[in-house]
Amino acid sequence: MEGGSRGAAPGGVSVSAVLPAGGSGERLGGATPKQFCAVQGRPLVSYAVRAMERISWISDVIVVVSPENIETMKTIIEKYGHKKVTVVEGGITRHRSIFNGLKVFAENEFSSNLLQKPEVVIIHDAVRPFVEEDIVSKVVMAAKEHGAAGAIRPLVSTVIASAADGCLDHSLERARYRASEMPQAFLFDIIYEAYQQCTDYDLDYGTECLHLALKYCKTNAKLVEGTADLWKVTYKRDLYAAESIIKDNLSQQVCVITNVKETLAQVGFLLPESLKSQIKVEAISISLSKNDSHLQNIISGQCYNFVCVNDKRCVIQEIQELVDMLEKSNIPLLYPVVLISVHLDVSENNSFSTGMEDLTTIKKFARETKKKNILVYGLLIQYK
Amino acid sequence: MEGGSRGAAPGGVSVSAVLPAGGSGERLGGATPKQFCAVQGRPLVSYAVRAMERISWISDVIVVVSPENIETMKTIIEKYGHKKVTVVEGGITRHRSIFNGLKVFAENEFSSNLLQKPEVVIIHDAVRPFVEEDIVSKVVMAAKEHGAAGAIRPLVSTVIASAADGCLDHSLERARYRASEMPQAFLFDIIYEAYQQCTDYDLDYGTECLHLALKYCKTNAKLVEGTADLWKVTYKRDLYAAESIIKDNLSQQVCVITNVKETLAQVGFLLPESLKSQIKVEAISISLSKNDSHLQNIISGQCYNFVCVNDKRCVIQEIQELVDMLEKSNIPLLYPVVLISVHLDVSENNSFSTGMEDLTTIKKFARETKKKNILVYGLLIQYK
Repeated sequence: MEGGSRGAAPGGVSVSAVLPAGGSGERLGGATPKQFCAVQGRPLVSYAVRAMERISWISDVIVVVSPENIETMKTIIEKYGHKKVTVVEGGITRHRSIFNGLKVFAENEFSSNLLQKPEVVIIHDAVRPFVEEDIVSKVVMAAKEHGAAGAIRPLVSTVIASAADGCLDHSLERARYRASEMPQAFLFDIIYEAYQQCTDYDLDYGTECLHLALKYCKTNAKLVEGTADLWKVTYKRDLYAAESIIKDNLSQQVCVITNVKETLAQVGFLLPESLKSQIKVEAISISLSKNDSHLQNIISGQCYNFVCVNDKRCVIQEIQELVDMLEKSNIPLLYPVVLISVHLDVSENNSFSTGMEDLTTIKKFARETKKKNILVYGLLIQYK
Repeated sequence: MEGGSRGAAPGGVSVSAVLPAGGSGERLGGATPKQFCAVQGRPLVSYAVRAMERISWISDVIVVVSPENIETMKTIIEKYGHKKVTVVEGGITRHRSIFNGLKVFAENEFSSNLLQKPEVVIIHDAVRPFVEEDIVSKVVMAAKEHGAAGAIRPLVSTVIASAADGCLDHSLERARYRASEMPQAFLFDIIYEAYQQCTDYDLDYGTECLHLALKYCKTNAKLVEGTADLWKVTYKRDLYAAESIIKDNLSQQVCVITNVKETLAQVGFLLPESLKSQIKVEAISISLSKNDSHLQNIISGQCYNFVCVNDKRCVIQEIQELVDMLEKSNIPLLYPVVLISVHLDVSENNSFSTGMEDLTTIKKFARETKKKNILVYGLLIQYK
């Protein structure tokens, strides 16, 4: 499940993130810059922001966009309920945009609303939607120790150098080299110093932050092996791939909701345990009527499957509340949301007919919600 | 359209191709090697074979597979009607497999059925399904002139070298380097010589054919800028991407079939011309009853849209023949085939009612074919 994390910052440092999102997406071959392309109805940048935002120990997420996209970005923040985001105007190159993002923490002149300078700053791409907390944490820890760190991946193709005549000069031994990916992290003072020192040539033609830290602060970044899902959406085919991965994820996550009674809490525990080997499960124990913000996080994290385990008679109310929340959450309901209400009847004098009445009510309700692409199922379990 | 090409070999040389397909697909994370993974119901290797096979000036396509997959490969050849393919048993590494593939043209002992040695041999991957004739032709031409040639692409990520302690040693200036992709092509004698000369270390740990040609034959390969669709299916996300690209292609290709009468040929010419800007169009002028092999190529090339322009009365026969061909072709009809029959009535005494009769017959027929996922439409155009 994709709910907000609850852990402390790795190594106890304060952490914020900068996401350059100013690219024009030329390689994608479309008019819309790739970070604003919709994947499952939601812009790519929103996935990347969410990936950062749901890590509880990240304080601020700075999204740097080109001037013409500031309004678009603000609309996205509004629509998807992003909370930690500050939008900053980018420069004409990637390095200049990142530098602008960093200035928010350091220069009073730059921002009316100077943000708390973090000890470690993460730099991530707006077009890498699938970063997990685990790798972010590793990179932050390594940055704390080494001053700089970055995720790497094995090379997929051999890298070659060409001579002036367009012929092969030499090929690199693939095993000795790696692709430098994102996220990267730096002690704030190191990367900020590097940007202040670096030349206009660096700012205009460079792309690699690790290189700046090495060149201007003599900091050799620690390289951290990343997972395959860190890849950057570059070509149109990558958008297809992102779409399919997100669809896959939708069907492989389930949120189990139980109320607080002990018997149920136990069932609510056993169910996730037995499901865990096959799908991502988040079990939460709440009363829906309290309008739990954790549940809202889960919904906006695009969880599309819910199992509500309850022992109350009026399960229909609970289901109705959840459907309301789903509708209000603004998540695009392009794929069917599956909502299974399990009524666990543990009373001494439970009767079959009362249970069936509930199921009939659910069945009726389900017919309505089906039109909204929300599939409701009822399940009655009686034991004495 | 994807029909078989009719052009002569670039530079008049004889050309054959070797496709190493012995990989285990570890990076894909599945049990099935990626080249045998089904995309739209058809194994990836079959797309790559087809891409080579439909280029008319390529004589033989050698597919090198590991011993345990020889039967699988033979079944694929049978099922998809591949004609130019010879299956060869691979070695334990990529280079050893390619070497085995080349031996089919050179060593009597190796094969009971020694194939005609080509002047130029193409080496392509079984997991690059989207190669177009244009780039293959360019690479072959360059190989004829320079002895070796290969497709390249810009680097997507910065490439870095790590030091022994797992920290950044240096990063490469991205603009100076390229990713080496496929297809590659060689004068047969050069690459065969290189493989005969090279060490066991090369055969076991190398991957780059261009490197062998340089090291053992002092041949600096010509580098040819390739298109984005040359990428290699490596990870699971690449399978998703391939699937989406193939689906896109299905809907963006149309084959216009006309019979030989002059009036029609003209319409058959104007229609493709006006469609060309939006979709890939192949216009062929044939009589269906002759069981044209060119049309069969088009069908096995997974064209899913057909427009038949005709002036005969019994258009239903023509449609029926095409449906028969589609069914016999063994292409997986997972996506609806659209078949539009245009009856162009140019006779002096054409009557509306006769035309309508034909349309009614087509409508009935369409109801049957719909079950097979073939959608038939009729269109009547009368002019005097």
